[in-house]
Amino acid sequence: MRIAVDAMGGDKAPDEIVAGVLASLEQLDDNHIVLIGDEPRILELLGDPSVWKEKVSVVHASEVIEMDDSPVEALKKKRKSSISIMSKMAKEGSVDIVLSAGNTGACVAACQMRMRLLPGVQKPGILVVFPTIAGPIVICDVGANVAPKHIHLHQYALMASVYAREVLGVTHPTVGLLSIGQEDSKGNELVKKTNRLMREDDRIDFIGNVEPRSILQRPSDVLICEGFVGNIILKLTEGLAEGIFRFIGKEFARQKPELLPHFKPVVESIYAKHDYNEYGGAPLLGVNGTCVICHGSSDARAIKNAILIALRQAKTDINSKIVEQLAKTSDALKD
Amino acid sequence: MRIAVDAMGGDKAPDEIVAGVLASLEQLDDNHIVLIGDEPRILELLGDPSVWKEKVSVVHASEVIEMDDSPVEALKKKRKSSISIMSKMAKEGSVDIVLSAGNTGACVAACQMRMRLLPGVQKPGILVVFPTIAGPIVICDVGANVAPKHIHLHQYALMASVYAREVLGVTHPTVGLLSIGQEDSKGNELVKKTNRLMREDDRIDFIGNVEPRSILQRPSDVLICEGFVGNIILKLTEGLAEGIFRFIGKEFARQKPELLPHFKPVVESIYAKHDYNEYGGAPLLGVNGTCVICHGSSDARAIKNAILIALRQAKTDINSKIVEQLAKTSDALKD
Repeated sequence: MRIAVDAMGGDKAPDEIVAGVLASLEQLDDNHIVLIGDEPRILELLGDPSVWKEKVSVVHASEVIEMDDSPVEALKKKRKSSISIMSKMAKEGSVDIVLSAGNTGACVAACQMRMRLLPGVQKPGILVVFPTIAGPIVICDVGANVAPKHIHLHQYALMASVYAREVLGVTHPTVGLLSIGQEDSKGNELVKKTNRLMREDDRIDFIGNVEPRSILQRPSDVLICEGFVGNIILKLTEGLAEGIFRFIGKEFARQKPELLPHFKPVVESIYAKHDYNEYGGAPLLGVNGTCVICHGSSDARAIKNAILIALRQAKTDINSKIVEQLAKTSDALKD
Repeated sequence: MRIAVDAMGGDKAPDEIVAGVLASLEQLDDNHIVLIGDEPRILELLGDPSVWKEKVSVVHASEVIEMDDSPVEALKKKRKSSISIMSKMAKEGSVDIVLSAGNTGACVAACQMRMRLLPGVQKPGILVVFPTIAGPIVICDVGANVAPKHIHLHQYALMASVYAREVLGVTHPTVGLLSIGQEDSKGNELVKKTNRLMREDDRIDFIGNVEPRSILQRPSDVLICEGFVGNIILKLTEGLAEGIFRFIGKEFARQKPELLPHFKPVVESIYAKHDYNEYGGAPLLGVNGTCVICHGSSDARAIKNAILIALRQAKTDINSKIVEQLAKTSDALKD
């Protein structure tokens, strides 16, 4: 497999991206990485060619889509950006996987435009594997689609169930729908319509609405929500975890300053176990190919994990299973 | 002032509601409480009349709107419910404040229908005072309006700024708009339209979009979001705080079991300082009167605090200041 890695995407690019690529080399097997971005800078960071030249090639990109660029506009104007070039390479089949920690909107738009969607898919969705006390829960969508219809969320349920089954090995994945109350009558119009659609579809093992309060208890294997809300959940969780650890540290310092040194390893161990960096990137489900979106602040470890997990995922060929499942479902709903 | 308290609303009603009323008596001054609900049960819980009879009266309600009832339907069918009766009393002027920990949707709908909205207000919004490490931040809306337009969110910014100024004493409240990126171009259509409207209005000290990651750092005095998202934030925060404390407890038990007893008082102290119960109920801004909505799992302490804070708030007469501010703003935007 050939994986294109956006060297210019993310807050720590290109240094940490290139470092992540180098860190992944030992476990790459016969796969190949194409690093895309500012070639001289990348070569400088890669260092001694004897270390990487058999497994890494570099493709120059003279432009960069910044994190705060407007996605569609940036894609139009910056045709020589790394995101633009890598999506073209995927379209042409010269790489199998694209991976970026850069501007999410631009990456989604580029993959959707160039790689096209799988037959039957209406909109792509970003899936994350979210750590909880009871094991990981799959959440989709977390930001690809900020104006979804109920039919999109319904498709996310089908696609994410395929992912949970094929990639995480959950035999019969249960699906919950995020809302502000467990009852079918609670939520906004989008949630109510999606709820009805999911209840009707016997391909989905739908447990009903799930309240955000219970996410960390892992109420279902898969959790479906609209992209705006899913993105809020990810970012709020990050901020809250950090804030709560700081609250506790402060309170320890006040009540039992002598115990503070014991608190730090506890926090570190929790972070290590539940860090998104461990789970690699987030796949963009529904595109005709493999696109993995990494956290904007990914460091070398996150990039390395994302590369290795992306390769593993691409080998499961979930796309053909998604196409199969969507085709089946339309029949079921027609009955 | 006369405050109507819904004795039947909430997971712990009527026991904890009545206990909260009794706990508030000492600090009631010359205010009066009207407890509404199952009279025999309330009288039993109130106990010795000599303790309360001068400050509390009881009004019987033969029906109860349950937490999972559909709000509008329940209001139509259960005309003898506590929520229905208290909103009628507010309309007639026989009470000045209504307070309920019951079905939020039913409470919002009842107050909106019976008490009507303040002149100029299009939709009411629920405001919460949310504890952060840097002091409380005002968030609006957290669940009154699940299908808002940008003009509603714009009005919430004006109303919540009045609240921050008059009730919390923030001289020049800054306002942030919750989104999935700081840039004006990030977010869904609702956020983008609201952002433009807020930027145009010089009555609002608008700092732009705020990411959920930074909420606990208190990026602004006021934070505006749509009701569905605001409700998700509240419930996710509750669940996460609990979950993270459990994570840490578990990790302590694994790494340093002998230190576990020292961790518990730290957690308890944090909960005591940042507990929503301390902040009382959440005012429903925009109704022509005072309506306070309490957390569904409110205990006696939460109810007591909510009663005392509601009385203090009602005295500041923020409603006339909201009307004044909304009238001014329409002029400003017309220019």
